[in-house]
Amino acid sequence: MNAPDKAVHASPDFAALLARTREPFPASTKTYIEGSRPDVRVPLREVLLSNGERVHLYDTSGPYTDPAVAIDVRCGLPGVRTPWIAARADTEPYAGRLHQALDDGVKHEDLSAARIAALRAEAAGLQRLPRRARAGANVTQMHYARRGIVTPEMEYVALRENGRREWMAEYLADAQREQRLRGNGLGAALPSGPITPEFVRDEVARGRAIIPANINHPEVEPMAIGRNFLVKINANIGNSAVTSSIEEEVEKLVWAIRWGADNVMDLSTGRNIHTTRDWIVRNSPVPIGTVPIYQALEKVGGVAEDLSWAIYRDTLIEQAEQGVDYFTIHAGVRLPFIHLTANRRTGIVSRGGSIMAKWCIAHHQESFLYTHFEEICEIMKAYDVSFSLGDGLRPGSGADANDEAQFAELRTLGELTRIAWKHDVQTMIEGPGHVPMHMIQANMHEQLKHCHEAPFYTLGPLTIDIAPGYDHIASAIGAAMIGWMGTAMLCYVTPKEHLGLPDREDVKQGIIAYKIAAHAADVAKGHPGARVRDDAISKARFEFRWNDQFNLALDPETARDFHDETLPKDSSKEAHFCSMCGPKFCSMKITQDVREFAAAGMQAKSAEFKAAGGELYVPIQPA
Amino acid sequence: MNAPDKAVHASPDFAALLARTREPFPASTKTYIEGSRPDVRVPLREVLLSNGERVHLYDTSGPYTDPAVAIDVRCGLPGVRTPWIAARADTEPYAGRLHQALDDGVKHEDLSAARIAALRAEAAGLQRLPRRARAGANVTQMHYARRGIVTPEMEYVALRENGRREWMAEYLADAQREQRLRGNGLGAALPSGPITPEFVRDEVARGRAIIPANINHPEVEPMAIGRNFLVKINANIGNSAVTSSIEEEVEKLVWAIRWGADNVMDLSTGRNIHTTRDWIVRNSPVPIGTVPIYQALEKVGGVAEDLSWAIYRDTLIEQAEQGVDYFTIHAGVRLPFIHLTANRRTGIVSRGGSIMAKWCIAHHQESFLYTHFEEICEIMKAYDVSFSLGDGLRPGSGADANDEAQFAELRTLGELTRIAWKHDVQTMIEGPGHVPMHMIQANMHEQLKHCHEAPFYTLGPLTIDIAPGYDHIASAIGAAMIGWMGTAMLCYVTPKEHLGLPDREDVKQGIIAYKIAAHAADVAKGHPGARVRDDAISKARFEFRWNDQFNLALDPETARDFHDETLPKDSSKEAHFCSMCGPKFCSMKITQDVREFAAAGMQAKSAEFKAAGGELYVPIQPA
Repeated sequence: MNAPDKAVHASPDFAALLARTREPFPASTKTYIEGSRPDVRVPLREVLLSNGERVHLYDTSGPYTDPAVAIDVRCGLPGVRTPWIAARADTEPYAGRLHQALDDGVKHEDLSAARIAALRAEAAGLQRLPRRARAGANVTQMHYARRGIVTPEMEYVALRENGRREWMAEYLADAQREQRLRGNGLGAALPSGPITPEFVRDEVARGRAIIPANINHPEVEPMAIGRNFLVKINANIGNSAVTSSIEEEVEKLVWAIRWGADNVMDLSTGRNIHTTRDWIVRNSPVPIGTVPIYQALEKVGGVAEDLSWAIYRDTLIEQAEQGVDYFTIHAGVRLPFIHLTANRRTGIVSRGGSIMAKWCIAHHQESFLYTHFEEICEIMKAYDVSFSLGDGLRPGSGADANDEAQFAELRTLGELTRIAWKHDVQTMIEGPGHVPMHMIQANMHEQLKHCHEAPFYTLGPLTIDIAPGYDHIASAIGAAMIGWMGTAMLCYVTPKEHLGLPDREDVKQGIIAYKIAAHAADVAKGHPGARVRDDAISKARFEFRWNDQFNLALDPETARDFHDETLPKDSSKEAHFCSMCGPKFCSMKITQDVREFAAAGMQAKSAEFKAAGGELYVPIQPA
Repeated sequence: MNAPDKAVHASPDFAALLARTREPFPASTKTYIEGSRPDVRVPLREVLLSNGERVHLYDTSGPYTDPAVAIDVRCGLPGVRTPWIAARADTEPYAGRLHQALDDGVKHEDLSAARIAALRAEAAGLQRLPRRARAGANVTQMHYARRGIVTPEMEYVALRENGRREWMAEYLADAQREQRLRGNGLGAALPSGPITPEFVRDEVARGRAIIPANINHPEVEPMAIGRNFLVKINANIGNSAVTSSIEEEVEKLVWAIRWGADNVMDLSTGRNIHTTRDWIVRNSPVPIGTVPIYQALEKVGGVAEDLSWAIYRDTLIEQAEQGVDYFTIHAGVRLPFIHLTANRRTGIVSRGGSIMAKWCIAHHQESFLYTHFEEICEIMKAYDVSFSLGDGLRPGSGADANDEAQFAELRTLGELTRIAWKHDVQTMIEGPGHVPMHMIQANMHEQLKHCHEAPFYTLGPLTIDIAPGYDHIASAIGAAMIGWMGTAMLCYVTPKEHLGLPDREDVKQGIIAYKIAAHAADVAKGHPGARVRDDAISKARFEFRWNDQFNLALDPETARDFHDETLPKDSSKEAHFCSMCGPKFCSMKITQDVREFAAAGMQAKSAEFKAAGGELYVPIQPA
């Protein structure tokens, strides 16, 4: 059944919404750190406090929050990495694969000629001639790293992870003094000082970190996913069946990175899938991941058995040419593992995993993803697409956690990691899912052991199954714990998980919950400087600098709104008491009094001491 | 400044709201387990599933969700425990302390005569003659337990913790078979089978659990707080400056227990504090806790220095007579510890702690709570009020976590626990606050060590400081972890923490987040039967029984609403696919196909095996 054709137009509503979504956060300005060359310019969000101090925050929002940058979503973002890629002189432009109507998930006859023309016209400004590695070349960041080359991408990552470290001196001194504030890395190899470009190179060379950065996605602001860097988060977006405009799709992306998504996966299915991806990639400053099997399945009309290596391979090239930075590939769902899921409480819950399981059983053949894995590596290294080795057999309930199906697949992912690394292809490993707290540590342990410290990228995990509507919370608990234990990137879960498609507000709620989890992990691990923001906000809180507390919060608007519900008057933002207790009862106010009392007491004691002759041992007075 | 007098009236809005709040959850009915005597009737919520199965859930909502019970908030609830208390024949009614206008936080002249009359009239039906221990008697559950007496309260608790265990057989069998599903108690002493009344008695006698149950609160449905029982949660409520009606206050309470609060603390300050407490206690089936220093401070006009033992003592008796089940008493805030907070990032953030610190410094005297502790014990044991030894020096930021001020106080609380136990007074210990993940374990460790396994009752802890507006999430992470590690009760945090006073929706959000944390802890600890609800909902999810999934969720209404946003049609509740993927793409649907394939494959293999002569070792065939 065809959805009625809808006129493709630049919806004025979404254009206006996008303009609003571009507004900088309160008291915040975009600032840049310059690297060793002028085109290495790393963005930071600078928050100006009411006492004149400035706090610098890691900034995922890209040029959208810089009012100085003019953005036209019909032309895409400027290519931050274009000169770096060109300078390496190991890639070449080429005509690229021929675009087919099927790429947008439909046969020609299903779409009116007018609609095809309109779609193509809208995406025209976003078309680029693709590049690929010259014959015999390998253009992955891992390949460079292993040859000892520090790329501009690696330098960028180092500067970005550090932020403005001068400012941190006071807080780092605390940690030096106090063991308890140093965190506990649980085996992470965090540097004790600033992160150097050489450290980044070494981590990428070892496979402990990846920098997802397809040569056809020069718009990306490089970032690292690895245990010894800040914990990152991923947000999933996807088109609805009929997309109305570029603005609508791009606004979803801008909304997600505004709140802190470090990566975005485009999980679109159905119509217009290729064109939507053009819109997203060309306008994205963060790495974009996809699950290519979804599009391949569309091309065979949704019948898993009809999938083939030829169709899948073609889809990989199609998406690599567009600039997708990492592919989720469920190559660990092997024929011999499928029966292990038969007695599970919730069978196979991964879409990609179940598609491949169905294919394997229908053909009674080993998965073509597994048998063609080396050929996939050849494609990956020609574009620097990173593997995200999918956990197609992840548990869909606590009852199925850590079972043999899950761990058999994990061990296979470790085996595939070795093959990927033989080709210098960057690789991360996806993890569950639903895991009760007491089984989380084993997941991290097995992953480190079998996957040779390749970055772990987990969905949650959800610690319980009974919280539909609140699974962002049930999973943030597991995410924070596994992040502390060593997971490099956390895939968010929204409140709509298990129930429906997330809307704009759900996306925000999911991202905030995961920023909390990732930050809790960073603080616990002792990532240098992670506590700076906590210390700044605690200080603001204690000194009744309400506006600073709001502006340093993960969500300044909500913090302000909640405060204003109780004490709406502007004057109360300066008040020396909190909205909970009122002026008479405020514990922070009392503490300040206590400090004065204590200080006075010390002086009095000191005066008494001097009056007594300054003797260290004062004779006991008769009572 | 006086707030304008507001007419006291039975607001028809709140009466209507309360009626709605009493509605049972969908597909749920109240059922009761009978004990060894007919007046031991333990409530459970029974959820009827669409496949005819019944799931029984722990039920905190009291008679409010039983449509068969007629409730009049002007008369209070029936006294579940009245016959048990009477049968023990160790208490006596007495005239009680004389009610003073100051008990309601104001001097006589501040209130119009009409308002005083109206307030008193409204509370008239809730007045009871108080009871206390006969001379020389000790009426605490701990005292009985130590003398080997299993009280009806203990039997009630045992039945309540077990629920309907017959139903669990299938799920418990799983756990027997699979080590990974048994949980990891991290040193807890959970029984492997059903909890017996004798087990409850033993835990109470050892001090590892308490049953908060003031003899003047016979309305309470007994519950236990202890490491070897289900993890409990506490919700705080408090009146606004001017309360409009009994219905309004009682509705807050009913709302909190509806969503799962096991205990409620009444943190009212300001006007009408005594009368509000009458309204709450008389209508509460859950234990009520208070912080008596708040009311004492009201009585001295908010000037901490003017507090005295006499005023405080009088307040304890006033509240004990009303039926408060536990008192937060900050007796560990000792004079010699106060200077330890002077260099903290956020000083003293506990209200009670800062009040006592101010008093100590103003008088340069040891805290009267500490010096009069044995006298406090005498009061507690005459009414069976439990101690909740307050952590007045808890950290207000991650930077202050686990510092010497905090642990000096904790060690003092351990010393006071010994004194309380000498008097057979039930005791739990309050804990922080703000604690990064890597410091949580040490909190539990120190508490177990210094406080002799008395139940730990923590506020969160919040794992980071930068999430105002979302601190229910930042703290649910810490709460789940510390609950797993051994904390017996988790004090909720609402989204308004640090910002303002929680409204009805905030209370719900805080409770749901804490039900998630507590349940995650129960599952991880391996509490027998905790996984039953998870397994039932996972099974419903896998079998596309949408309504069962909603009805088993912590918040059935929200789960249903979220689903309906994507697929609103009723028919889709029966659909064999989920709302996320649609019919073509549904991974659970595919898995069911895979199972059929797998089963068929097994049969084929089996047929092949038999056809080959049934030999275990089949000769290798030439390729």
